[in-house]
Amino acid sequence: MNTRKPNILVSNDDGIEAPGLQRLVEELKSFANVYVSAPYTQQSAVGHSITIFYPLRTYEHLKDGKFFGIAVEGTPADAVKIGVLHFFKDVKFDMVVSGINHGANTAINIIYSGTVSAATEGTILKIPSIAVSLTTFTKADFIEPAKIASAIIKQMWEDDKINLHEGTLLNMNIPNVPLNEIKGVKVTKQGRSYWEDAFEVRKDPNGRDYYWLTGHMEYRDISTEFDVAAVKENYVSITPLHFDLTDYLTYEEIKNWQLNLK
Amino acid sequence: MNTRKPNILVSNDDGIEAPGLQRLVEELKSFANVYVSAPYTQQSAVGHSITIFYPLRTYEHLKDGKFFGIAVEGTPADAVKIGVLHFFKDVKFDMVVSGINHGANTAINIIYSGTVSAATEGTILKIPSIAVSLTTFTKADFIEPAKIASAIIKQMWEDDKINLHEGTLLNMNIPNVPLNEIKGVKVTKQGRSYWEDAFEVRKDPNGRDYYWLTGHMEYRDISTEFDVAAVKENYVSITPLHFDLTDYLTYEEIKNWQLNLK
Repeated sequence: MNTRKPNILVSNDDGIEAPGLQRLVEELKSFANVYVSAPYTQQSAVGHSITIFYPLRTYEHLKDGKFFGIAVEGTPADAVKIGVLHFFKDVKFDMVVSGINHGANTAINIIYSGTVSAATEGTILKIPSIAVSLTTFTKADFIEPAKIASAIIKQMWEDDKINLHEGTLLNMNIPNVPLNEIKGVKVTKQGRSYWEDAFEVRKDPNGRDYYWLTGHMEYRDISTEFDVAAVKENYVSITPLHFDLTDYLTYEEIKNWQLNLK
Repeated sequence: MNTRKPNILVSNDDGIEAPGLQRLVEELKSFANVYVSAPYTQQSAVGHSITIFYPLRTYEHLKDGKFFGIAVEGTPADAVKIGVLHFFKDVKFDMVVSGINHGANTAINIIYSGTVSAATEGTILKIPSIAVSLTTFTKADFIEPAKIASAIIKQMWEDDKINLHEGTLLNMNIPNVPLNEIKGVKVTKQGRSYWEDAFEVRKDPNGRDYYWLTGHMEYRDISTEFDVAAVKENYVSITPLHFDLTDYLTYEEIKNWQLNLK
């Protein structure tokens, strides 16, 4: 059992002032040294971007007149990178925790997710990392979800479950229901549900067209083995992810292709 | 053998006027019906982002006074989505081809890549998709690489190699050397090389700090089984990728974790 106080970097994609991050930081402080480096403003659906053509600006963010963390004018990945490599470079981090995101990061949504990308960046920097999301897009209270996330993360730390394979991160999704309705914690696989998208065409006051992306999720996952279905059934879902995108099944099938250069 | 003329949507992340896209379109036209929907300006390192908080604007892009394609004020994924679902919705696309990117998209770079994200978006829309990159960041001539990419894509189409598993895309990287120095085409796995990053601190004219991301690639891939090594050895590398990020090895190891909610 791990009794040392862990050093945790917290980031997110909803911005440093988002209630999801604020509540999570409060709870994590009950057992950890917490450092914050997060985007200045909301960065949802930025995917795994980094800023390379422009310099980054940062601000010391205060809360109740005291230093709270570093606000970064950039993406979640930028915030984690500059927090670990520059502002808190003397800290040996035991974990990066990203969240709590306001909205599910399950199935196909994972590839668009800034929350997951912050955790991915932690993993790239060789720090065990966890993304945490609350599975609702409507108004939400983060007090209970933050307690649940923190309790689970504390157990993983104490039981030494946090050091997985190099390159593996954990993606946690918490259903938006009261604690007594949550059935437990389930380790899952990424679901295969996807968005059926469409564009709505509107006209601006000058008569020019512009387009809004709209769509609905097509549910293809019934078994609670999958993240989408697990949270629908009121389980906290934890999915191990990695960024080796190789499709090994297809690789084996096509590795002997004969292709010419002209 | 497939003798029908395929319908191809071309996109990229360097913008609709980038020479990599322009040369590729010219070559693909030798055997395909080509449609273009690409970002208006350079979008490199945007990762797999979509625009959801703002509406999209689009422009008809002309070349030599004739319609060339749709320029989208958005990300590569936006451009593919709106091209397929709106502007060319009456076309049954056989392929999405993204590129030719100016710069390698191998190893860890894949997760930051707008070029790959355009192809991923095609795959999400259930269209076989290919990302094409030229592995140099210095000045490049795209005439020969476009011929090579087009010849390979034509063979894949004719030999019916294009219909892989649902959710699989192909990531092609072409070494920046003359045709006679290229050793052949190799199907590869995503490499494990990564960036060793750092931030350079500078002061603006008003004395305030700002930060530039800098770094160098740490090579960890020696075998030409991996994309990075294959292109270094002057092979065209083709890697099958998918967006199921589940780490199945770790899943099997941790699926019976006992975790409590408080």
